[in-house]
Amino acid sequence: MEHATAEEVRAVGLRAKEAAAVLRTLTRAQKDAALLAIADALHVNAERIVAENERDITAARNAGTDPAIIDRLTLTTERLDAIAHAVRNVAALPDPVGDVVRGYSLPNGLKVRQIKVPLGVVGMIYEARPNVTVDAAALCLKSGNAALLRGSASAAHSNQVLIDTMRNALATTDVPEDAICRVPGLSHDSVEHLMRARGIVDVLIPRGGAGLIRSVVENSVVPVIETGVGNCHVYLHSDAPTDRAVAIVVNAKTQRVSVCNAAETLLVHKDAADRLLPPVFEALKAKGVTVHCDDAAHRLAKDAGINVMAVTDHDWAEEYYSLDLAVGVVDDLEAAIGHIARWSSGHTEAIVTDSLHVADRFCEAVDSAAVMVNASTRFTDGEELGFGAEIGISTQKLHARGPMALPELTTTKFLIEGEGHVRA
Amino acid sequence: MEHATAEEVRAVGLRAKEAAAVLRTLTRAQKDAALLAIADALHVNAERIVAENERDITAARNAGTDPAIIDRLTLTTERLDAIAHAVRNVAALPDPVGDVVRGYSLPNGLKVRQIKVPLGVVGMIYEARPNVTVDAAALCLKSGNAALLRGSASAAHSNQVLIDTMRNALATTDVPEDAICRVPGLSHDSVEHLMRARGIVDVLIPRGGAGLIRSVVENSVVPVIETGVGNCHVYLHSDAPTDRAVAIVVNAKTQRVSVCNAAETLLVHKDAADRLLPPVFEALKAKGVTVHCDDAAHRLAKDAGINVMAVTDHDWAEEYYSLDLAVGVVDDLEAAIGHIARWSSGHTEAIVTDSLHVADRFCEAVDSAAVMVNASTRFTDGEELGFGAEIGISTQKLHARGPMALPELTTTKFLIEGEGHVRA
Repeated sequence: MEHATAEEVRAVGLRAKEAAAVLRTLTRAQKDAALLAIADALHVNAERIVAENERDITAARNAGTDPAIIDRLTLTTERLDAIAHAVRNVAALPDPVGDVVRGYSLPNGLKVRQIKVPLGVVGMIYEARPNVTVDAAALCLKSGNAALLRGSASAAHSNQVLIDTMRNALATTDVPEDAICRVPGLSHDSVEHLMRARGIVDVLIPRGGAGLIRSVVENSVVPVIETGVGNCHVYLHSDAPTDRAVAIVVNAKTQRVSVCNAAETLLVHKDAADRLLPPVFEALKAKGVTVHCDDAAHRLAKDAGINVMAVTDHDWAEEYYSLDLAVGVVDDLEAAIGHIARWSSGHTEAIVTDSLHVADRFCEAVDSAAVMVNASTRFTDGEELGFGAEIGISTQKLHARGPMALPELTTTKFLIEGEGHVRA
Repeated sequence: MEHATAEEVRAVGLRAKEAAAVLRTLTRAQKDAALLAIADALHVNAERIVAENERDITAARNAGTDPAIIDRLTLTTERLDAIAHAVRNVAALPDPVGDVVRGYSLPNGLKVRQIKVPLGVVGMIYEARPNVTVDAAALCLKSGNAALLRGSASAAHSNQVLIDTMRNALATTDVPEDAICRVPGLSHDSVEHLMRARGIVDVLIPRGGAGLIRSVVENSVVPVIETGVGNCHVYLHSDAPTDRAVAIVVNAKTQRVSVCNAAETLLVHKDAADRLLPPVFEALKAKGVTVHCDDAAHRLAKDAGINVMAVTDHDWAEEYYSLDLAVGVVDDLEAAIGHIARWSSGHTEAIVTDSLHVADRFCEAVDSAAVMVNASTRFTDGEELGFGAEIGISTQKLHARGPMALPELTTTKFLIEGEGHVRA
């Protein structure tokens, strides 16, 4: 496996930093032209990219990798078309750089503007999804940032050919090639070096499993945006209409199970358990869900004939990523809020109710990135919220919270103009 | 010296976290009433506070502490009045909590609002300035955050009595006492425990010398906002009017030397050095400044009779905090930008020019929290910019950049309302 020294990682980072200094001053037209050149190059090089991807797939098959992971790793010409299309969509999005966040004149005549500017160098650490290589590079480029990409060893050939393709495309544009750089090294030490490159890398965004994210959060000296861990809850209040409750629980749990905004725990008000749980269990049973129930819910699950197990604290804490759902009956709204405060990862929680007062209290008391009232947890997503793109979903409170798109890849700068002003 | 275990620090953190859950839901009126109660209590307890402060001062004198540091440590009834007045000013500021950052309806009818909410638990680690104890607590309270305060051992008696006074005042209000907590322990291990309390503490803000800040930035697992290191530059372009150049350089360097927004390096365009440096040196000499000059500036400094030394790389890198100034002559605007890119800490840089094109290029290319055009670097300050308060000046790019006040002590939350919406 390819190793890299700290000096090698820092050298690439410094090249990205130099590119960032150029990128910061480019116009939207210059950046969009580069994005379109990248999209074209992905088409032109599709055959070579698919062939290189095949090498990763073969290696993964030989290593006995899980078919679901191999599927995520796989690039076809159709998937490359979709990736190129996404790059064109990014080109069509507004450029956040230069947006005035606030602007005013002070009593002494100083003119103050706070404007959005690129972060600089954005490091991405991610797992075996080669589409992230292009998505992340495109979003960074559009927002004026240089991208330092550290994908997984299992996608090494795919990432290399994608990065080569993008860099060659940039060579024909005003954007420096080093705006998109591969972090050298495929063993863990190159991630370690990246996490210590403070002063070169402005932010690290890890994308992948909980283990990867925790490791980066705990060990990085570079500022990190924590993404994607979602232990999401749906709470059915005593007045929840049955049809709406069933539809939202089924959608939140089963529409796609391997994503962070899927529901992992269902809480039901005790006065509505007998009314709501039988049809909810009926519908979940039809989708093949196993429920992990507390005592009050257990009896109703047995009656419904759904696959059922006794719930443990481990279930309340877990993000299943599977057709499993923890189910509990709570005494009241406050008990639901308390349960969520104890177990949630702060991603998304939903309530089903018709009471304005109950909805307001839930929205106010629940401390998560997104709170849904009468809607599925699955809507916490940059595309669904109309951002046009998404680089990740922040589950931390600093800088960005919830789905992150182009504006979240910027910082600000104060521009202050005087006429010789000095401080008294 | 008082030690604290990780469990003791975490226990206090958890109490602060419970208080934060209450604070999050309080109205502005409830929070303002608590702030006014604190201001009153500082008056009522002034005698006791000054007496406790005297114990710290005596210990500092016996330890041979620098008089400037003892001055910062000292509380008098007049200074307490000013501190209480500042708390009343915070009460009068608008409450950022609940502000709608964006709000819109999606094509499918989902109503989306992103609103400002408190961060939760804010940890402050700071040096021997007891006024920070009250300032930080007031700003956290107003923005709905619980404050975990870790001052220095040398201000231990002062901080204890101030925190006791504030907590007793809270006991008469709707704000829980644990909204303001002292981090137990005065030895370094209690800071270590605080830096590892991820999941309890939402953000750490270190305030103090470069060593303290670097240590927190490098070792904290809790997200950190880096503050206050300022190696600020003033660049005089070839067309800089002489009077304006002299006034800004003198103000930026000498108006107050011990602060992060004071200038540490002066750069002058080579075509203007002979015109500008003699009067600049004349004026700096009258203020007792020592200049550290490159070859081109050295001769002019000697002619002016100002105290002069040869500049080294160490000078370009240094934040003097003293009546010293590094001075260099540069070939052109781009050379000035390049020097700043290499040596600046990204706090504040100023240019003196009458050229719109030159000013625009400087503003665009310089990557610092604040860029001044024809104004002193000393204006990068929350009070000066009209924020009404300041909890620190961020020199990082994530979350907040430049002076931070109440809005920077918030995060956001998406509130999404549907009518049974599920994802297709």
